[in-house]
Amino acid sequence: MPETNRTYLLSKRPEGKPDRDTFELTEEEVPQPGPGEALVRTLYLSVDPYMRDRMNAGESYAEPWAVGDPLRGGVVGEVVESNGAGFEPGDVVTGNLQWADYATAAGTDLHQVDPDLAPVSTALGVLGMPGRTAYFGTREVADVSAGDTFVVTGAAGAVGSVAGQIAKLSGARVVGFAGSDEKVAFLEDDLGFDAGINYKATDDYAAALDEAAPNGVDAYYDNVGGEITDAVFTRLNVDARVAVCGQISLYNAEEIPTGPRKLPALIESRATVEGFLVQDFMPRFEEATRKLAEWVASGDVTYRETVTEGLENAPDAFLGLFEGENVGKQLVKVGERDA
Amino acid sequence: MPETNRTYLLSKRPEGKPDRDTFELTEEEVPQPGPGEALVRTLYLSVDPYMRDRMNAGESYAEPWAVGDPLRGGVVGEVVESNGAGFEPGDVVTGNLQWADYATAAGTDLHQVDPDLAPVSTALGVLGMPGRTAYFGTREVADVSAGDTFVVTGAAGAVGSVAGQIAKLSGARVVGFAGSDEKVAFLEDDLGFDAGINYKATDDYAAALDEAAPNGVDAYYDNVGGEITDAVFTRLNVDARVAVCGQISLYNAEEIPTGPRKLPALIESRATVEGFLVQDFMPRFEEATRKLAEWVASGDVTYRETVTEGLENAPDAFLGLFEGENVGKQLVKVGERDA
Repeated sequence: MPETNRTYLLSKRPEGKPDRDTFELTEEEVPQPGPGEALVRTLYLSVDPYMRDRMNAGESYAEPWAVGDPLRGGVVGEVVESNGAGFEPGDVVTGNLQWADYATAAGTDLHQVDPDLAPVSTALGVLGMPGRTAYFGTREVADVSAGDTFVVTGAAGAVGSVAGQIAKLSGARVVGFAGSDEKVAFLEDDLGFDAGINYKATDDYAAALDEAAPNGVDAYYDNVGGEITDAVFTRLNVDARVAVCGQISLYNAEEIPTGPRKLPALIESRATVEGFLVQDFMPRFEEATRKLAEWVASGDVTYRETVTEGLENAPDAFLGLFEGENVGKQLVKVGERDA
Repeated sequence: MPETNRTYLLSKRPEGKPDRDTFELTEEEVPQPGPGEALVRTLYLSVDPYMRDRMNAGESYAEPWAVGDPLRGGVVGEVVESNGAGFEPGDVVTGNLQWADYATAAGTDLHQVDPDLAPVSTALGVLGMPGRTAYFGTREVADVSAGDTFVVTGAAGAVGSVAGQIAKLSGARVVGFAGSDEKVAFLEDDLGFDAGINYKATDDYAAALDEAAPNGVDAYYDNVGGEITDAVFTRLNVDARVAVCGQISLYNAEEIPTGPRKLPALIESRATVEGFLVQDFMPRFEEATRKLAEWVASGDVTYRETVTEGLENAPDAFLGLFEGENVGKQLVKVGERDA
């Protein structure tokens, strides 16, 4: 075991776009697990768009991170030492841990990962928070059903790629917005989407939608917001549902972004727009994970991961989310499982 | 019976704000009812904000009115002659008729009004479309319940005044935005609202809300839109519901109005925003009218009417809606009932 442990801290609050100076890598001793705690060695670290919000001082659904505190996120790791935490050394676990080589956590905050079910990294993606977010957002909030036209933004990302496939399994026509021809090919060829739209190759999102979704939009799963969403709102069918999952295009805005007012369009369409947090579905997490695991095993749901090597590169992996650099789930690989 | 019949036509499509030139008063013979039709003499004519939308060429939930065609709206009238329409002369009826002294209509498009239940004008207000809109919007869409804070815009208007009282009957704290001190007094003293806000006397709607709704907003009934709505969206509680009934502040806009983007706030609050049209509740209209009549009879729901005298002044009554000139339901009195 190395004697030191690297940890990323929030070095300052970003104004607008974060950059490498937002992060500070420190080095100290590997911590000792207290009573009821385990020491976990990080295998994979998850970087997710919602983390941008926690870097702000303002109130949000999550407590803001304090400047100088370690960053935290979803981690899959291996238990090194258990101090009455209810795990054995070698167990693979997941939890919300520090961006670090090693971290301690209460046993009650860790969940066992079954390495025989799927690669352990999927506990941060298709079988983890992003997969569950897609599951509940698509089925419960967007309430998709057979015959619907379902549109999703950030379609090639960790959440969008799963959302679109779940909508497809429900019998919907599925249209995804993504930011490159490569991603569009991934949607159409690998994931079975009916149409992908490369939003970076068109200015006229409404016209692109008219082609890809000629019967209008019944269910919209929004991860991105902004001008694409403006266009989708002009194409909502009567009784359409909009699930507001994320608004990544707006997270780095320094002032409150403006856009066309959308409420008048809701009267005509009688549409419902609903924001949601996956935490609110916690009592049903097991159902979602089981269903997703079945679909992954049967090949009905395909996933892809973009893996950045090395804890030291975690900030770049995070910043890349806002540039659309990832296809599927963006992970940081920090360590290897012991053989 | 007079030999001529005055009728208002749409003389041209307004660009932005309509004015008197939008309307043309013509005079022709009193029409004859065809088979299955009745001739109805207008007693009261309803002017409503939704009519502005029908003056536009664009698609909407209602067919646009054609230039040169008669304007239409809710009318309460007296049957003069029935040609197998199923009514007797002297019957009081309501229907969607022309802005005219007299109009013919199929018997199937007319509904009997019981003059013993309440003044017949209420068939266009608290016991008519505005009352039903308030009933379903408050109970079904905004889904108000005891302990909620309920906020309504256009609170002194035909819909808002009833919506607030229904919310109050449900046990909510009720806050209304209206456009004068007189209206605020009406809300607080006559209707039993917990607080009224004169939006013309403050620039800081959010601060006014913090005072009137210190526990945030659980249910929002929006008739107005624009900057008041922007402020309310910053005060939505977790799982808040927004019923989008109207957006009168935007109806005369010549270009698509812009404002702060609101979807990010919906994630944090997990709020639901839903547009609705009262027509969608048609199977339950009788329930609503019965319930409203009970509340009016018991004094639980109070109503007020602003009555403009004379068909010739109907355009002014309509235009006044956008200036907030009415308290309660704006009507045009066209004729007297036969003694």
